[in-house]
Amino acid sequence: MGMTIAEKILAARSGNESVVPGQLIMCDTSWVLCHEITTPAALRMLEERGMDKVFNPDQIVAVPDHSVPAMNIKAAKMYQKLKSWVHEKGIKHFFDVGRGGIAHVVLENTGLVKPGDTLVSGDSHTCNAGALGAFATGVGSTDLAGAIYSGKVWFKVPETMLIKVTGQFKPGVTPKDLVLEVIKQIGADGANYMVMEWVGETIDNMDMEGRFTLTNMAIEAGGKTGIVAVDDATRAYLAARGVTPDQYTEYQSDSDAKYKVVIEIDAGALEPTVAYPHIPSNGKVAGTDKIAVTHAYVGSCTNGRISDLREVAAILKGRKVADGVQMIVVPATQAIWKQAAQEGLMEIFVDAGASVSYPSCGACLGMHSGVLGPNDVCISSSNRNFVGRMGDPSAQIYLASPATVAASAVNGYISDPRDFIGAGSAAD
Amino acid sequence: MGMTIAEKILAARSGNESVVPGQLIMCDTSWVLCHEITTPAALRMLEERGMDKVFNPDQIVAVPDHSVPAMNIKAAKMYQKLKSWVHEKGIKHFFDVGRGGIAHVVLENTGLVKPGDTLVSGDSHTCNAGALGAFATGVGSTDLAGAIYSGKVWFKVPETMLIKVTGQFKPGVTPKDLVLEVIKQIGADGANYMVMEWVGETIDNMDMEGRFTLTNMAIEAGGKTGIVAVDDATRAYLAARGVTPDQYTEYQSDSDAKYKVVIEIDAGALEPTVAYPHIPSNGKVAGTDKIAVTHAYVGSCTNGRISDLREVAAILKGRKVADGVQMIVVPATQAIWKQAAQEGLMEIFVDAGASVSYPSCGACLGMHSGVLGPNDVCISSSNRNFVGRMGDPSAQIYLASPATVAASAVNGYISDPRDFIGAGSAAD
Repeated sequence: MGMTIAEKILAARSGNESVVPGQLIMCDTSWVLCHEITTPAALRMLEERGMDKVFNPDQIVAVPDHSVPAMNIKAAKMYQKLKSWVHEKGIKHFFDVGRGGIAHVVLENTGLVKPGDTLVSGDSHTCNAGALGAFATGVGSTDLAGAIYSGKVWFKVPETMLIKVTGQFKPGVTPKDLVLEVIKQIGADGANYMVMEWVGETIDNMDMEGRFTLTNMAIEAGGKTGIVAVDDATRAYLAARGVTPDQYTEYQSDSDAKYKVVIEIDAGALEPTVAYPHIPSNGKVAGTDKIAVTHAYVGSCTNGRISDLREVAAILKGRKVADGVQMIVVPATQAIWKQAAQEGLMEIFVDAGASVSYPSCGACLGMHSGVLGPNDVCISSSNRNFVGRMGDPSAQIYLASPATVAASAVNGYISDPRDFIGAGSAAD
Repeated sequence: MGMTIAEKILAARSGNESVVPGQLIMCDTSWVLCHEITTPAALRMLEERGMDKVFNPDQIVAVPDHSVPAMNIKAAKMYQKLKSWVHEKGIKHFFDVGRGGIAHVVLENTGLVKPGDTLVSGDSHTCNAGALGAFATGVGSTDLAGAIYSGKVWFKVPETMLIKVTGQFKPGVTPKDLVLEVIKQIGADGANYMVMEWVGETIDNMDMEGRFTLTNMAIEAGGKTGIVAVDDATRAYLAARGVTPDQYTEYQSDSDAKYKVVIEIDAGALEPTVAYPHIPSNGKVAGTDKIAVTHAYVGSCTNGRISDLREVAAILKGRKVADGVQMIVVPATQAIWKQAAQEGLMEIFVDAGASVSYPSCGACLGMHSGVLGPNDVCISSSNRNFVGRMGDPSAQIYLASPATVAASAVNGYISDPRDFIGAGSAAD
């Protein structure tokens, strides 16, 4: 019987000729991604058991990102723990504060994770890297400890959902709107423990940044991971990072691969979509209701990339964030930050009245740098709008594309970005 | 008997022909500066007494800066309190998050505070504005409440210390080194409840940014405020902000004014100075001891201005922050942030491996965005190095000029900036 990409990767990395969904396997992990929030707990487990070693320091990537520059003394200690461990174990790939950014986005840009690789991390958005044709997933701190120690991780082979996307996005519609629509259709548990495999001409025509947004959000439908097969876009992306095809293995799903679910989406029928509180599946067309916002947030591992910042700048240029709205723009990495500066986007943001932060997960999960207070209403390019996710439990979080966030920030209420797109900037 | 500038301002604003040190007076306050940390406490006092009014909404300047974008839910509530009060009272001069920055530096740039004005705020570095020939001082939340309600504030007329500075700084020596040297000479209580009046050719030749650094630090010697007489530099600075001489009153100290203390400094004899832990008066020449640092911080109301950022960029250009050192650069306002972006400084910072933050007081007082952990060692351009000021009580804080901070960040240990100045950037 045929296999999916994910099954083929898991078979290869577990030393099996083939695997089937439900099978328990022990897999080699190509990479372990470590940040300062969940890693210290894993390290403590190992230390308490006299198992304080690393299977291979060259296969660990360490990126402090959640609470740094340290938001308080406790965060400073967690950062110190990660840093001293990196030093002690000779971990090669360490992206310190000021040299990295949000771990998932730093990693996707390094050229370290390659097609056919396996990757685990103590973070639910690890699925992000699936856009590279890798099997990437979040694990708890206990499994993280096991992976750090042994380079191995147990999986139950997941079933796969096939998402076929055809047609062309209308102007103002983005991959974020696509993934919010899919989650709306299948539900926030619609892909529970499944691989979400994205195929079709829309995906073929999508740049890598858009694909990362799709795979990043797999967990918001309960998915084990998201994945996109390698194609020319993937190869070019990797080549730009010094990675040649001989360094990786391309897997494609067999034509007779078995899918648990197949869904089909017409990209041309999509509208800018906003996920209403308090669940990412609660999608409605942007602008359906006139909802005043107090906060607008562009950033996160989902939508803090240069293409996102360009879309935001196109709308903000020559315009102002509405009075009473606090807007934060958080480039996902230092490299993206620099690119935005070089392109003159930063001046546009500041002229509009937005704050630009150092790269950080801070506001996305209500840790720091933009925590919501009681009854605040935030339009956010991030990935999760659960109760209390960004701060006070009474705050309301609406998820949307960066363009929708920018349009809403300017109007002061949740808006369709097409009100601005094509109209040119106010300065033109 | 002659009067000092400060005495003349206090006499005029209290309706007296003359005042003498020690006299208790009730003064009109031209301005009340309000941030989100101390103002809510003052407002609560007024509300509890049924005195919830503002003497004149056009004479209040509100700038959230310490804990925003909100560092936690409590901070979000304090920000909400300030914002709703601003809205309710019709306060005209509100610099919201993304439109302002660090309150003292925002204010100095508005053209609102003018020579001869009085200014109070619930913040110890309010003395900053003294460089404009105004009487500006920090008060507690109770006095702040009184000022908000009545536009009046009680003072005991302070004595004045005259600081005469002659000669020219050697390359690599800055106003920050001067003020650290003065505090070293007189002690951290050397100017207790005095006005520190700066005069002499060195001050005459100093730009306004340098003068703000001097008056800003008055409180670190126990001073009630710092002050510099109006001259052409002041007039030009104000003119650039749309303020003409007919809008303000210039006061000069009389030749027979009485000073409690007179000290004389030869600026040409100064060296780059570092205040060792745990008191700003603990100055030594930079590079005296080879002290490894873990953190380097450029920012604060003392030294987060564009000239400071330029000095830092001149040293960082083409160089890297040493491995293991976390460097944060915090432009003091959104306007300075934008200016730095336009001048290409931001790319230099990021290339060097520094994080650039939104404007904030965060790291300076260990609130967020760069809190120190146990035994961290920070070289900082800020103003105060007390135990626990920037985070864990075991952390060590060394105060210095922005140039010294940059040099130390590159070397990884506290260094004399003259090691780099004149040598050109590494990229040249």
